[in-house]
Amino acid sequence: MTEPKAPDPSRRSERSRRAIYEAALGLVGEVGYGRTTVEAIAARAGVGKQTIYRWWPSKAAVLMDAFLDLATRAAEEAGPGGPVIPDTGDLRADLRLVLRATVDQMNDPAYDAPARALTAEGVIDAATGARFVERLLAPQLELYTVRLRAAQQAGAVRPSVDPRIALELFVGPLLHRWLLRTLPLTHAYADAVVDYALDGLAPRP
Amino acid sequence: MTEPKAPDPSRRSERSRRAIYEAALGLVGEVGYGRTTVEAIAARAGVGKQTIYRWWPSKAAVLMDAFLDLATRAAEEAGPGGPVIPDTGDLRADLRLVLRATVDQMNDPAYDAPARALTAEGVIDAATGARFVERLLAPQLELYTVRLRAAQQAGAVRPSVDPRIALELFVGPLLHRWLLRTLPLTHAYADAVVDYALDGLAPRP
Repeated sequence: MTEPKAPDPSRRSERSRRAIYEAALGLVGEVGYGRTTVEAIAARAGVGKQTIYRWWPSKAAVLMDAFLDLATRAAEEAGPGGPVIPDTGDLRADLRLVLRATVDQMNDPAYDAPARALTAEGVIDAATGARFVERLLAPQLELYTVRLRAAQQAGAVRPSVDPRIALELFVGPLLHRWLLRTLPLTHAYADAVVDYALDGLAPRP
Repeated sequence: MTEPKAPDPSRRSERSRRAIYEAALGLVGEVGYGRTTVEAIAARAGVGKQTIYRWWPSKAAVLMDAFLDLATRAAEEAGPGGPVIPDTGDLRADLRLVLRATVDQMNDPAYDAPARALTAEGVIDAATGARFVERLLAPQLELYTVRLRAAQQAGAVRPSVDPRIALELFVGPLLHRWLLRTLPLTHAYADAVVDYALDGLAPRP
């Protein structure tokens, strides 16, 4: 017979952290950034307010970490290797894969609601926006820069192209359609964006 | 000696309407969409609350009209012919002109603050977003569709391209950089977006 185990404190705090993230994302999606409070997050997560303040200095900090955690887990679920853009040697196929996965994420209500709330807050508040870009967006965009540079070395992208501008031809249209809800975000749309950006709109000689 | 003129009521109400628009745009840029009230707009414009409610059913309606008025005047100032994309026969030059003007507008604080407040509200609230798209955005995007269709007929855009998707390669990157404040919005950037979208990123054979 084995001894009964003492509760593992690191496992318990991992459980609390996850409950706090879920409560934070749920609340911000339901009532918006402005009306989400540390008190409400603590109540929904079933922890004391002190637990949250022991780990994060502010509501902004816990919401940012919750969202980073969501984005990281989504990237991990998307495939082995974690949050990278694959390099199979076929740039078109690799970008279609990434843009289709982005479309799927934008269409997922569990992502859509908190992502809208946090993006809207960043649109209005420059300091929140800067943190959002620094901690979440810039590392994601860097993956495109790396992949496009590799494509340039492989001869699949013109040498004169600036990868940091070029990547906006992929992520810009998706953001436009998602944030402004103009038309449905589909895989066919993602494929067309990749094809138009790679081949251009002007006829080829 | 001429008779002293009676005050012109239509001119007086035009003055009130303009004062209400200016107050509405100023307030929404300063305190945000949620905290802007009809009372505060009336007080700043120097009119009675009843004057506003005689012309508009709600805060949302007056803010939308104020913003439409701002956008229309900006388009009129941009050049004769009003809010159209020119067709000089040179698609690249015409699009550079429009994208540079868009960049200038986004960099103008008088546009930036209310535009951010209204866009953020539309990002969160689907009904506001839908009105924004229907009344303001869709007519603007239609101008791109028309210009790209003319370019297809002139042989400057491949016949297989869907203009409604293609236009997002121009407006998407600008929205991304403006809303998320990633990097400066310059004329050189606008020109690069036009060139990349027209020529594509892949090498031409």
